Amino acid sequence: MDGERSEKTVAEEVSRLVDSAKELQDSAGALISRNSREEDSLRQRALSLDSTIRGLRKSVSSLVERGDLDRKEAEKLVEELYRASYILSEGDAAAFLPSKSHGRFLSMFLGPINVRATRKDVKLKVKEEYNSFRDRTAFLFLFFPSLLLVLRSWIWDGCLPALPVQLYQAWLLFLYIGLALRENILRVNGSGIRPWWIYHHYFAMAMALISLTWEIEREPDCAQKQRGVQLFLQWAIMQGVAMLLQNRYQRQRLYTRIALGKAGRMDVVWGETAGVEGQLWLLAPILFILQGFEAYIGMLLLKIALVGVVSEWQVITCGILLIIMAVGNFANTVETLVAKSRVKEKMKRSKSRPELNQGSSS
Amino acid sequence: MDGERSEKTVAEEVSRLVDSAKELQDSAGALISRNSREEDSLRQRALSLDSTIRGLRKSVSSLVERGDLDRKEAEKLVEELYRASYILSEGDAAAFLPSKSHGRFLSMFLGPINVRATRKDVKLKVKEEYNSFRDRTAFLFLFFPSLLLVLRSWIWDGCLPALPVQLYQAWLLFLYIGLALRENILRVNGSGIRPWWIYHHYFAMAMALISLTWEIEREPDCAQKQRGVQLFLQWAIMQGVAMLLQNRYQRQRLYTRIALGKAGRMDVVWGETAGVEGQLWLLAPILFILQGFEAYIGMLLLKIALVGVVSEWQVITCGILLIIMAVGNFANTVETLVAKSRVKEKMKRSKSRPELNQGSSS
Repeated sequence: MDGERSEKTVAEEVSRLVDSAKELQDSAGALISRNSREEDSLRQRALSLDSTIRGLRKSVSSLVERGDLDRKEAEKLVEELYRASYILSEGDAAAFLPSKSHGRFLSMFLGPINVRATRKDVKLKVKEEYNSFRDRTAFLFLFFPSLLLVLRSWIWDGCLPALPVQLYQAWLLFLYIGLALRENILRVNGSGIRPWWIYHHYFAMAMALISLTWEIEREPDCAQKQRGVQLFLQWAIMQGVAMLLQNRYQRQRLYTRIALGKAGRMDVVWGETAGVEGQLWLLAPILFILQGFEAYIGMLLLKIALVGVVSEWQVITCGILLIIMAVGNFANTVETLVAKSRVKEKMKRSKSRPELNQGSSS
Repeated sequence: MDGERSEKTVAEEVSRLVDSAKELQDSAGALISRNSREEDSLRQRALSLDSTIRGLRKSVSSLVERGDLDRKEAEKLVEELYRASYILSEGDAAAFLPSKSHGRFLSMFLGPINVRATRKDVKLKVKEEYNSFRDRTAFLFLFFPSLLLVLRSWIWDGCLPALPVQLYQAWLLFLYIGLALRENILRVNGSGIRPWWIYHHYFAMAMALISLTWEIEREPDCAQKQRGVQLFLQWAIMQGVAMLLQNRYQRQRLYTRIALGKAGRMDVVWGETAGVEGQLWLLAPILFILQGFEAYIGMLLLKIALVGVVSEWQVITCGILLIIMAVGNFANTVETLVAKSRVKEKMKRSKSRPELNQGSSS
């Protein structure tokens, strides 16, 4: 057919084509502008609902305080309000609520591009992929330092060569940059991730960067001088184990919470926050031991630096960073445990009653 | 007012609120699903138009080959086809054509989030911001190495201390990661950036990373051993100057091309591609000198390593990377110049006639 097209047919087809291109352009333009109009109107409605919810919450509290509302009635109203705010923050309208600002980290690396997904299924895909990324990561977190330590005693005679360690540190650096970017993106998409866990990855990024500039091979007496590196690797192995446990528990917990309709599906709680009930009492001690070990390595690095075995600034800075991270992790884990036990107590007092402070503002 | 709300009013308001939350949820859901339906249909139409354009192009060529179509008529048809493909690729419908895949780099750092903007004004904002980011970068590119070299001769007695150089290298690393991410995002948004300039930033990233592990302070005889670093800093200063010139020319050229309706506005041609006519003949020699200097430093690093002054693997690797980058930059600059002069010749032969090969497939 194609070869037999005459000049006239082709000319006609071309002019038809130009017309349909123009039509397509018109429809596309119309769709885009109608869309942004309708989105604006939904945005207005979502915002006004959000502020109405806040206002009514206050009214209920003040009525209760003045004694004008009995407890039972108040609880019913609060539950209704919670339902409304849940519909607003977890339903399709959530896409039209103003998003959290992208923050400096994202705009530095990505510019002003929007990383917020409108459709729920895309958001979930992002979350799922983050979870499986963390799983893959945890295995490597376990594997790389183990390999280095095994090779150290089997082949390298107790003295780590610089290159493999530096490759590992470069991997850590890129990993932490990736994690920080992904977590910032999740935050923009409405995840309730605690800010500390993102800061934690900034600190870890800084430490990986600093450790790259750190001289590792130092004959003679390298066993003593590499004590810090060795402890760091051991800590990384423990971290890998803990991450694997956490990932499993987190996922179970998330699915449980989704099933209970308690959490936005975008909730990410990097590790330390909670496990499924009983499992938490297995996880919490491991986390505390890990944090203690982290602080211990930090202290040890400071000691090495102050005694004068290795007096580079990198050793001191890494020591301080490790201690900051350990303290921050500890504080955030304790806070989460306290918050959890408070929720549990409330649940005991009044089964199925949601807390006053939860909802659209959290 | 608020304090005086009675129990009854509040209860009424709460139940009204729940109703409006449900209504909002329904409208939002309806908008999102209607939207994705209509977008799908536009996507279908855009795709079929795109393939029709390709088919008709082939038909015109074969008619011309068989002598069934005279030159004048063919040129008119080609021009019409170009117009249709321009409407399709630059108009609002472009948002519904399938986007280029995100690529491994973006998905590694960001996960599966979509970084493609639908609205034209957002795309332009991304592009503008990229340009101003490059401007800010160029100044720092000029400032940091100059400062280091000035301090080296004024304060540091010809011997650079490690920390400031490493801070500079860390800045370079983050800068290149940011540039690579932003350019990948521009590519997804339809920019015609040459792949080489993105690869170039991957190589530069690797070099910044490697140079971080490189020991800088090496008394005695540090002046000789730091020769590589010193040359690298001088090259960075030249790079800064060239970047400033390029940015100015690029922007002028882009605006000219936009005015002529010749280019998609998302076209980014990192530096080397072209300036506005005459300015190109100022820019091209600077670029060639820069590339020559880049290769020279690479060679020098190899020489230092082979002679044995500093025999670390980092020196050899950086040398090789610099030479690869210089050769790649040179080849791409020449290719662009050749392409430009070919276009110019064609323009001379037939004023205002667009080339056959341009259009939706480019």
